[in-house]
Amino acid sequence: MSAVKAAKQPVIYLTRIESFDSAHRLHSRQLDDKTNRDTFGKCNTIHGHNYRVELTVKGTADPVTGILCNNYVLKQIMSDTILKPFDHKFIDEDVSYFKDENHSSTVENIVFFIWKAVSERLPINVRLHQIKLYSTEKNVVTFSGEFE
Amino acid sequence: MSAVKAAKQPVIYLTRIESFDSAHRLHSRQLDDKTNRDTFGKCNTIHGHNYRVELTVKGTADPVTGILCNNYVLKQIMSDTILKPFDHKFIDEDVSYFKDENHSSTVENIVFFIWKAVSERLPINVRLHQIKLYSTEKNVVTFSGEFE
Amino acid sequence: MSAVKAAKQPVIYLTRIESFDSAHRLHSRQLDDKTNRDTFGKCNTIHGHNYRVELTVKGTADPVTGILCNNYVLKQIMSDTILKPFDHKFIDEDVSYFKDENHSSTVENIVFFIWKAVSERLPINVRLHQIKLYSTEKNVVTFSGEFE
Amino acid sequence: MSAVKAAKQPVIYLTRIESFDSAHRLHSRQLDDKTNRDTFGKCNTIHGHNYRVELTVKGTADPVTGILCNNYVLKQIMSDTILKPFDHKFIDEDVSYFKDENHSSTVENIVFFIWKAVSERLPINVRLHQIKLYSTEKNVVTFSGEFE
Amino acid sequence: MSAVKAAKQPVIYLTRIESFDSAHRLHSRQLDDKTNRDTFGKCNTIHGHNYRVELTVKGTADPVTGILCNNYVLKQIMSDTILKPFDHKFIDEDVSYFKDENHSSTVENIVFFIWKAVSERLPINVRLHQIKLYSTEKNVVTFSGEFE
Amino acid sequence: MSAVKAAKQPVIYLTRIESFDSAHRLHSRQLDDKTNRDTFGKCNTIHGHNYRVELTVKGTADPVTGILCNNYVLKQIMSDTILKPFDHKFIDEDVSYFKDENHSSTVENIVFFIWKAVSERLPINVRLHQIKLYSTEKNVVTFSGEFE
Repeated sequence: MSAVKAAKQPVIYLTRIESFDSAHRLHSRQLDDKTNRDTFGKCNTIHGHNYRVELTVKGTADPVTGILCNNYVLKQIMSDTILKPFDHKFIDEDVSYFKDENHSSTVENIVFFIWKAVSERLPINVRLHQIKLYSTEKNVVTFSGEFE
Repeated sequence: MSAVKAAKQPVIYLTRIESFDSAHRLHSRQLDDKTNRDTFGKCNTIHGHNYRVELTVKGTADPVTGILCNNYVLKQIMSDTILKPFDHKFIDEDVSYFKDENHSSTVENIVFFIWKAVSERLPINVRLHQIKLYSTEKNVVTFSGEFE
Repeated sequence: MSAVKAAKQPVIYLTRIESFDSAHRLHSRQLDDKTNRDTFGKCNTIHGHNYRVELTVKGTADPVTGILCNNYVLKQIMSDTILKPFDHKFIDEDVSYFKDENHSSTVENIVFFIWKAVSERLPINVRLHQIKLYSTEKNVVTFSGEFE
Repeated sequence: MSAVKAAKQPVIYLTRIESFDSAHRLHSRQLDDKTNRDTFGKCNTIHGHNYRVELTVKGTADPVTGILCNNYVLKQIMSDTILKPFDHKFIDEDVSYFKDENHSSTVENIVFFIWKAVSERLPINVRLHQIKLYSTEKNVVTFSGEFE
Repeated sequence: MSAVKAAKQPVIYLTRIESFDSAHRLHSRQLDDKTNRDTFGKCNTIHGHNYRVELTVKGTADPVTGILCNNYVLKQIMSDTILKPFDHKFIDEDVSYFKDENHSSTVENIVFFIWKAVSERLPINVRLHQIKLYSTEKNVVTFSGEFE
Repeated sequence: MSAVKAAKQPVIYLTRIESFDSAHRLHSRQLDDKTNRDTFGKCNTIHGHNYRVELTVKGTADPVTGILCNNYVLKQIMSDTILKPFDHKFIDEDVSYFKDENHSSTVENIVFFIWKAVSERLPINVRLHQIKLYSTEKNVVTFSGEFE
């Protein structure tokens, strides 16, 4: 890099969308059975979803190639950190984070789990921006790394 | 009805679309575990889907009202025969047809089960024409009452 | 045409999809107000839809060009016979067939009206096969020219 | 709450999607008829839409249940504040805000009306973040509580 | 098979959906340049599509497994016969049927080419029923093996 | 404008969605052929897409009409700046920015090109907020005018 300051580059957000099919039930081990049923209603029984996940990273494109991040890189990361643990699995039994720790398999908890898993795998030039998780076509959660 | 032959009426097909969220696994009790895994692959483990079902009936519209069948009639029938047994359920455990009889919970078997359940409930002026069942956006089965 | 019998050609079905936005209410002038409310429920009040129409024609492709029917031909026909009378209109007031004759603006009656209008406009080498009309994403009627 | 500061919690955005079918026309009582026609074009006549509304709230999930807000709570609020006034209605005649005050039924004005109605009904632990309103698949407005 | 006639089995239609991205132009070598431009309009220039293909086979499910055809079998056939020749290709240059023989790359000709390629690869217990090919969300052709 | 400060107005975001069909290949003239193939994989060959573009502008609605920007204004701008240069074109050959300057036709570069073209055409009361560009249903880039 020369001492001359480089021109500013446009910041691009790149989103890749995948889906996975899982079974789960909403049930908190910190609550008794009746409270679980009252809190989670019909979601307290075992059922399933075709989840849809939209992963967005941000950064500046390489000036030579014009790309921010190769699709096959994002695809591999999503395969390893999302599809492998969740696709065609029973989340409450097959994913240690939900089975062995005190986390119910709500979309809120799943999206936070995915955020942590993906953020450890990204290439150095891209930053994780947002993860959207659809449990149905009408219900979506979004996490963007904010805490309060 | 008078002795005068009524004019022919247009035959209308009416489709209503609903969806339900279920868990299942593909597993035949007539096969050993290894054959089940070889046959069904990753579908042999418990997972789930947002199923989408498209129910089509046919008939002629009432000349006065101009409708073939009220939407709330079809909605109630689909609620009773499809959503009630399958929505937020584990198909292999919660539906007797799959738990107690020798039927694996394939889309082929589910669509045939739904056909039989719906056909017993339709109003007299409409005939069941077709049922389409999506397990994912890319996989669909259709049954139209044909046998061979 | 020479005396030599031409080779048989594949029969192609070509579908073009358009949409239009209309207001309507379900109300039959052959019924009193109370019966209308009981029959049509909330659809008895003025409301509206983004209708989606799928028009399918059939025929054999021209051997030289490889096309059955130019898209702009179908587009023009659908514009004249469907979009012009229905788009951004109040069906019960603005379309004579529904205003002046005894037809309630049900999807069953609308799809039949469109069938007649389109069938008079098609080029000689294509035949009208089917019209599907969605009033919402979950409610569809289909007419294929059958009578009984 | 003890004096020890609690660990920060992830901020989750939860979106629920509903739809409703309404009639309307774009017409400002502050303008004469010709100016209305020139301004609003074909939208100056009565027509209708299947509107789609995406409501997004934000907050932190309950540590025990892992949920931010029960789906049936959001569903009830959207039913009371959006579906009840607008679904199967003629907006310009049936909703007082548009009939009796000087507001044309543009998506801009509808989304602002919905924002105010929803914000008075939310549970104390969730904040209204954004409302998106689709009049067609190709036209969307978004309001996030900003003023300038 | 014993001499006792087996009970009739339900006939199931199984559809799998894939997509591929190709470049093409509509141009017939049997026509001069001006006629090509007049016939095909803006489609006479090189452009591209995300094609969507829906392949439907029919047959009866295996009584033991309850499946008609394993998804990975259909997936492999579609990969070999559709994705491999067309995905990320320039159809008019990269597919011999369109480059070397007198076939313009219309959807009518592509769907017929795919029909022939797929029909030679299907397992013995399933029959090819229908292929739908979308060039855009609004334009679809369907071929079901009919000739006339 | 009087000296009395006007009440603050709600800030509305208006999105319009269009699509166009183009051919392209990913290829950087700053790289040799082998590096191009290694970098871009199958995208280094000529193929095509139905691109989908979502253009979002922001501003405050006119108090009299209740609209931020007429749909036909946005439609005309998108037609002139996006559809005209890209629809039914071979991007690498037909658009000077990609043919004559050193820009590969990545979605990152295309979205930035569109941003510049649109921003010069907007009416004075609306500001460009965001452009989303889908090359497939699963791959999206977004640019919001940020640089770093």
